[in-house]
Amino acid sequence: ILISWLITVVIFSGSCHATMPNMLNVHLVPHTHDDVGWLKTVDQYYYGDRNDIQHAGVQYILDSVVDQLLKNPDRRFIYVETAFFFRWWKQQSDGMRQTVKQLVNEGRLEFVNGGWCMSDEATTHYSAVIDQMTMGLRFLNETFGPCGRPRVAWHIDPFGHAREHASMFAQMGYDGFFFGRLDYQDRDRRRTDKDQELLWRASDSLTPPMADLFTGILPNGYNPPDGFCWDQSCDDPPIRDDPDLEDYNVDDVVNRFLMIASGQSLVYKTNHIIMTMGSDFQYENANLWYKNLDKLIHYVNARQANGSKVNVQMRLDDFFPYADNAHNFWTGYFTSRPALKRYERLSNSYLQTCNQLEVLGGPFSGSGPFGHDDSWTMRRAMAVAQHHDAVSGTEKQHVANDYARRLADGWQHCQVVVSNSLAALSGSSAKRIYCDNLNISVCPLTESSHKFSVNVYNPLARPVTWPVRLPVNGTAYTVLDANGKPVDSQLYIAIFKFDKLMIVKYHLIDIDPVPCFEIPLCVCVCVCQFLRATFDPDTGLLSSLSNLETKQTIRLTQNFYWYNASDGNSSVSNQPSGAYIFRPNSSTPFVISRTAKTESLQTSVVQEVRQWFSPWVSQVVRLYADSRALELEWTVGPLPVDDDLGKEVITRLDTSIDSSGIFYTDSNGREVLQRKKDFRPTWDLEQTEPIAGNYYPINSRAYIKDDVNQLTVVTDRSQGGGSIQNGSLEIMLHRRLLYDDVRGVGEPLNETSDVFPEGLVARGRLLLTLDRPQSAADTHRPLAQEVVLQPLLTFTSGDLHPNTRLEFSGLQDALPPAVHLLTLSQWGEDSVLLRLEHQYQSGESKQHTQPVTVNLQVRHTHTHTHTHTHTLSLPPCHCHPAGQTRNLPRRFTAQNRKRAPFVGPEQTEALRVCGGFWQMVQR
Amino acid sequence: ILISWLITVVIFSGSCHATMPNMLNVHLVPHTHDDVGWLKTVDQYYYGDRNDIQHAGVQYILDSVVDQLLKNPDRRFIYVETAFFFRWWKQQSDGMRQTVKQLVNEGRLEFVNGGWCMSDEATTHYSAVIDQMTMGLRFLNETFGPCGRPRVAWHIDPFGHAREHASMFAQMGYDGFFFGRLDYQDRDRRRTDKDQELLWRASDSLTPPMADLFTGILPNGYNPPDGFCWDQSCDDPPIRDDPDLEDYNVDDVVNRFLMIASGQSLVYKTNHIIMTMGSDFQYENANLWYKNLDKLIHYVNARQANGSKVNVQMRLDDFFPYADNAHNFWTGYFTSRPALKRYERLSNSYLQTCNQLEVLGGPFSGSGPFGHDDSWTMRRAMAVAQHHDAVSGTEKQHVANDYARRLADGWQHCQVVVSNSLAALSGSSAKRIYCDNLNISVCPLTESSHKFSVNVYNPLARPVTWPVRLPVNGTAYTVLDANGKPVDSQLYIAIFKFDKLMIVKYHLIDIDPVPCFEIPLCVCVCVCQFLRATFDPDTGLLSSLSNLETKQTIRLTQNFYWYNASDGNSSVSNQPSGAYIFRPNSSTPFVISRTAKTESLQTSVVQEVRQWFSPWVSQVVRLYADSRALELEWTVGPLPVDDDLGKEVITRLDTSIDSSGIFYTDSNGREVLQRKKDFRPTWDLEQTEPIAGNYYPINSRAYIKDDVNQLTVVTDRSQGGGSIQNGSLEIMLHRRLLYDDVRGVGEPLNETSDVFPEGLVARGRLLLTLDRPQSAADTHRPLAQEVVLQPLLTFTSGDLHPNTRLEFSGLQDALPPAVHLLTLSQWGEDSVLLRLEHQYQSGESKQHTQPVTVNLQVRHTHTHTHTHTHTLSLPPCHCHPAGQTRNLPRRFTAQNRKRAPFVGPEQTEALRVCGGFWQMVQR
Repeated sequence: ILISWLITVVIFSGSCHATMPNMLNVHLVPHTHDDVGWLKTVDQYYYGDRNDIQHAGVQYILDSVVDQLLKNPDRRFIYVETAFFFRWWKQQSDGMRQTVKQLVNEGRLEFVNGGWCMSDEATTHYSAVIDQMTMGLRFLNETFGPCGRPRVAWHIDPFGHAREHASMFAQMGYDGFFFGRLDYQDRDRRRTDKDQELLWRASDSLTPPMADLFTGILPNGYNPPDGFCWDQSCDDPPIRDDPDLEDYNVDDVVNRFLMIASGQSLVYKTNHIIMTMGSDFQYENANLWYKNLDKLIHYVNARQANGSKVNVQMRLDDFFPYADNAHNFWTGYFTSRPALKRYERLSNSYLQTCNQLEVLGGPFSGSGPFGHDDSWTMRRAMAVAQHHDAVSGTEKQHVANDYARRLADGWQHCQVVVSNSLAALSGSSAKRIYCDNLNISVCPLTESSHKFSVNVYNPLARPVTWPVRLPVNGTAYTVLDANGKPVDSQLYIAIFKFDKLMIVKYHLIDIDPVPCFEIPLCVCVCVCQFLRATFDPDTGLLSSLSNLETKQTIRLTQNFYWYNASDGNSSVSNQPSGAYIFRPNSSTPFVISRTAKTESLQTSVVQEVRQWFSPWVSQVVRLYADSRALELEWTVGPLPVDDDLGKEVITRLDTSIDSSGIFYTDSNGREVLQRKKDFRPTWDLEQTEPIAGNYYPINSRAYIKDDVNQLTVVTDRSQGGGSIQNGSLEIMLHRRLLYDDVRGVGEPLNETSDVFPEGLVARGRLLLTLDRPQSAADTHRPLAQEVVLQPLLTFTSGDLHPNTRLEFSGLQDALPPAVHLLTLSQWGEDSVLLRLEHQYQSGESKQHTQPVTVNLQVRHTHTHTHTHTHTLSLPPCHCHPAGQTRNLPRRFTAQNRKRAPFVGPEQTEALRVCGGFWQMVQR
Repeated sequence: ILISWLITVVIFSGSCHATMPNMLNVHLVPHTHDDVGWLKTVDQYYYGDRNDIQHAGVQYILDSVVDQLLKNPDRRFIYVETAFFFRWWKQQSDGMRQTVKQLVNEGRLEFVNGGWCMSDEATTHYSAVIDQMTMGLRFLNETFGPCGRPRVAWHIDPFGHAREHASMFAQMGYDGFFFGRLDYQDRDRRRTDKDQELLWRASDSLTPPMADLFTGILPNGYNPPDGFCWDQSCDDPPIRDDPDLEDYNVDDVVNRFLMIASGQSLVYKTNHIIMTMGSDFQYENANLWYKNLDKLIHYVNARQANGSKVNVQMRLDDFFPYADNAHNFWTGYFTSRPALKRYERLSNSYLQTCNQLEVLGGPFSGSGPFGHDDSWTMRRAMAVAQHHDAVSGTEKQHVANDYARRLADGWQHCQVVVSNSLAALSGSSAKRIYCDNLNISVCPLTESSHKFSVNVYNPLARPVTWPVRLPVNGTAYTVLDANGKPVDSQLYIAIFKFDKLMIVKYHLIDIDPVPCFEIPLCVCVCVCQFLRATFDPDTGLLSSLSNLETKQTIRLTQNFYWYNASDGNSSVSNQPSGAYIFRPNSSTPFVISRTAKTESLQTSVVQEVRQWFSPWVSQVVRLYADSRALELEWTVGPLPVDDDLGKEVITRLDTSIDSSGIFYTDSNGREVLQRKKDFRPTWDLEQTEPIAGNYYPINSRAYIKDDVNQLTVVTDRSQGGGSIQNGSLEIMLHRRLLYDDVRGVGEPLNETSDVFPEGLVARGRLLLTLDRPQSAADTHRPLAQEVVLQPLLTFTSGDLHPNTRLEFSGLQDALPPAVHLLTLSQWGEDSVLLRLEHQYQSGESKQHTQPVTVNLQVRHTHTHTHTHTHTLSLPPCHCHPAGQTRNLPRRFTAQNRKRAPFVGPEQTEALRVCGGFWQMVQR
């Protein structure tokens, strides 16, 4: 046996440390896992405030680790969360910075993962994940250069693992990936079969090995072996090597270590095993760890095992859902804190808009009539929100409030940028009003003004149609477009068409009231250009949905139900539902009401059926004139808990589709994976939780289909869902629970606030489309992007200044439908980051799963007029046959090593990836 | 205001740091309080083992503090416990040692107190305290020289303060003394009167200012001000000085600090105040403290108060008993763990013997036929046992076991030294047997051998008479002295006379049995040469005591009682009795039995009355033929607790002496202080606990007296006691409790062990003397020394080797009665430490309170024959009038500064102190 400090991927690279081919090589990985918010806020964690809640202070961890690394050149440490490292760095002296650089250059301090945070994998959208990874990696790259580049992705704590995350990590150039949490059955099987290293083929679309990622499962979560935790937070016996002492224990420690190492070697294939020496917020006093690790290495290496060739299995599916035991499925957090999840998604949209306008407005954006500002605060707030205890909803209430506060703060800063940019682009510095509460129909300006204009910015690179709903007090308005022509509008609502990256100013003038038009009832049928929805006149529920273009119809009933959350008092298991865990105490949910009270409204713009199911569940079903999606705007809450029953509310769509227990969900808003009831692709599942064990994260869409029909639901936030019955799809909308689920958060998920003292009310939209399976993506891909990147509305009061420019577009032409403008943002003072993405998955569209060539012409509008032209091809999708395995060379990732992580400026060469990204930084 | 790092006595020296005369100077004292055993053993504390019990690892504290001191030259730290520092030092590299020396030389790391431990003040004997201080100070002196010399005594945690400790500290040359615990009423009064600095005149006997000690009471125990604890074990908010943060709190922290400083300045006289920044086992991660202290100092000093002349009150009494509130008197620990207290005292005797024989045997002691060894283990064990959670009995059970184990280990090592020394002195290397269990009448050798010899060594410098009791199996023995003459002996017992520092070998030969002599009954009267004790024939209890020489007689009844310990369920207070706290739930104890069953035994050597009070209380009253003291050998336990009542057992002596509520107790075995019921000399007491509030520590003796009679009780260990009624004296013997008293130990004081599964049985002796008050000390002074330093018995089996030297004395003549040989021990390889002491207190003896001159002639018997002659005078006692005050100059202690602490080798000049010490190191 040989134990050593780990250079993170030394297991497979062996480049830096001597390893012994005929020995068992134990790689010790000193590490700390620093949640970017969880039980405490990110500030509290950084400074070590509120140690009464949890003892944790990251500033001290970094102080202490650096100190201790300096004491012995053999010592190593890995650090993960750049959000914290960045703060610490900023407070260091030049001398200390030089010292740390030296440690990084010598490989004594190594960054792994390196994102701003360790993002959640179930509830994050890939665009926000890419942004947060970019922030972290960019900082490391700019600060430390190549030696600061993380070579391993390290997601040791997220509660299950998304394939899209693995795909992104592979594309970012990581050599490998380690994680700790996977289904206990999966893990047991893998331990038995020595199958804890695997090759994850993380994309259906990308040509291998583009999305192949070597993945290692850590032996003990991310904790040290039992009895070897030497942190200040642990109680394990230190090594007492003074032979004069009664308590001398070196022999005992070495024997225990050898026993553990040898036991561990039995469940891994290679003669290299890893031990994570650290855990949550450990190493605040690194001396304790290192002093004992030094001794451990010294004494163990003063004593000796064998390895062999390795055959690594391939994996194609993801690691959801995650269960840590038979009745403990971590599927509740897919939905926990629905309002925060929506706010995070909306903030992402806003940030992208802010970034784009920062570019389009040029230097004026950062410094204009509305002040000096930038998107930095919002970027950081969004990056932090990706953390696996942030958007996941698994933090304490006060921390959730802090995340929301940070986002709101980010909005404030971005509003200055946006106002400056719009002033530059429109030629008018009239004060802009932001109505941040339009989601609850509050906008003081529009409610009080007789004449105002609304400025709409579309962050998508193609035209969209979007309904604009404004609260007004007048009884009739005239809406004029940029050319002064009236727009088809009704009181409270106008449907505007928006061009790509285009700002259009509409003008609303209070006019004399006209007689109310007759509202024809639409109780039984809503019909628009593309869709028809019918309702059961007896129940008031939806009864069918038809696509008028494709002439297909399905039976579709939709209703609301609630699962009675386990309270932990059960002979089977004492696990209650909580922030993480979903565990209904029965597989049969209670129906909220078998019938809905309904009202309906029909105008030339929209047809609506308003449904009331109970005082705490209602819905508006909307069909806009030229929409291809039926909108279900649900309002759920406050969930009553006077009966002492925790409630987990779902909506369920029951259809005539013969889905055979199969449904589909997206992974982080990007590729879609197949899900099958009571089944895992990789191992022989024993299903112990018939509902919770069949739930999967839905980031942007889910669908069921048979040979002819596909019903797709596009969501406006991350939610959990499942298909428990044939033809059925259920989505969890809201949860209110009375017990903590004993996974550390220490609070029941019972959201109340000043605004919602009786309990949180959540509102959201589901967009339903019915299509032929082979072309459904042609609808849901752009639809989902429209939900992710929605137009920004700003308002000005009264008349417009005569010289105001009313329209502006950042693009000369719309991008082809397959190409999505993922990122347009300022990179440096004189450089811009542009990311284009082929947004279709392999085989999901006849029309769009093709190579696309885009000709880019960049005009410098502000500083000079030099023009660059780029022609780039997003190549065709060619998917590798699935299910194969291959021999893993010891230096498996060497071929990928030259690919750099996805940081930006150096990567002007396109990443030519089917269904992947292209990015450039233009100076 | 000006805050600064404290150089410990900067308050009054100001020598190193700039202080501002017109400002409030706040001196911050970063410190850690490291118990040398308490909830964990000393090893566990050092290594940080068993952190499940208490998080504490001293090795890491010292690592971390040194690291942090190096980071900023302004930082300071004080360290106290040399037992820990010594261990740490021994593990450091040469480079680190140089670094630490530099820190000490620059005053950045400063030692205070500096003893091996921070000794207990209530239950320690002064001789053991001097030894442990010597060990600590010697190490500091030899390691660091003058810069390592502690200037301040620092007893921040002991539970009340003995005057004798203050006297020793003054004589050791400390500039001042700080402590934290004093009676809450006393403290309240002092705060009101700004009387928290005082001049403690700590001796009746020493000429001022020889025992004067400037004493400061710390403002908040030894803790930091509320809200300013920045240790890893604390939850107070750190200073968050990043102005970008929502949580920026510099203004708040500075304001709170100024408020606290200003509040504190109101209860102190000077414009210098102290704040202890630290607490139990803090600074394990010193970075947390220093990082925030650096910021505090920086931000506070960026903002400004006044001082004046100071008038300090004089104090003459001590600080016992200590109450932290009305019903919370820390007087239980005076008696807690009676067996440990006795074992510690016996070990002290054994160590002194070991030290003396190590000197007398010369180099052969360390290396002889029985191996290589020294007294170091025993010295350390004894030093550690002085800690205020060791002999005090306030540690957890497993820690008490560890202290006892250490002492036993020390005995083993000393036995090698003693055997070697005796072999050298006797010329015989016959195997020596040590009967360590003679206290329970177990000695396998004497119980099985027909012929054996016993070797007796008297560690006192004058002849004593001492009964030797041996368990034997024969029915008759002949005891022959060194000259082969028979000694007056009875079966099981012989009274031997021992000369000063003399070894005498007695030979016991099993002889043919002679007929048993008739045992005359002694139920009513025991009479010997000097004393007569009478018993009440109806009750079997003592009824009177007479001194036949002085012809005085008192009525004396003695019986056993138990207080029912509070269980905390009381409307008055929820304080239960525990390891620290004594709180009987009624002031009236239960009598164990009104009558005693008796048996009696009378021989030419001893008269005994054996009394049985209950299955768990018995006693033997003994009167030896030529003794001036009546011996009460009590046996108490196992205390029954089946009735769920905690029991605190006392014996009470009720006499005809008109003591008027006054009694006397010794302080650490040396000077005697007057105690008065329901009274404190220094403040106006409101007595809230009529029993516990009148208990005081008894280290070696207590007495009551009137104009003609003085009854003195000499104890064999530290115990608590009081005089609740006129003419009455009670001594607590044993305690068994069922509740923890909530002072941290977390266990009820309920001693059981393998040997005593039903509960600990304690046995001990009280020696009673009756004298005229003016001459009582002539008896009790030597008597108490005989109990403290008792003869050592060793055994050899069978016939003696013909050439064996049977007698040896280390002194040519006995020392004068007033002079006590306090220390004779090896100092270095070729040097010896000798301490002589004038053992009488001022005024307590006509005969002995006089100057004494001793002529010392040192013969080097082993290495060379050069002879030194010293004549030294222990001067007459001249006591300063009490109660005066004086103006305290700012640099009060400057005049004392040149006196060095009591470390040894440099202090060859005699400390010419009445009732004090003289010491020299002879090379």
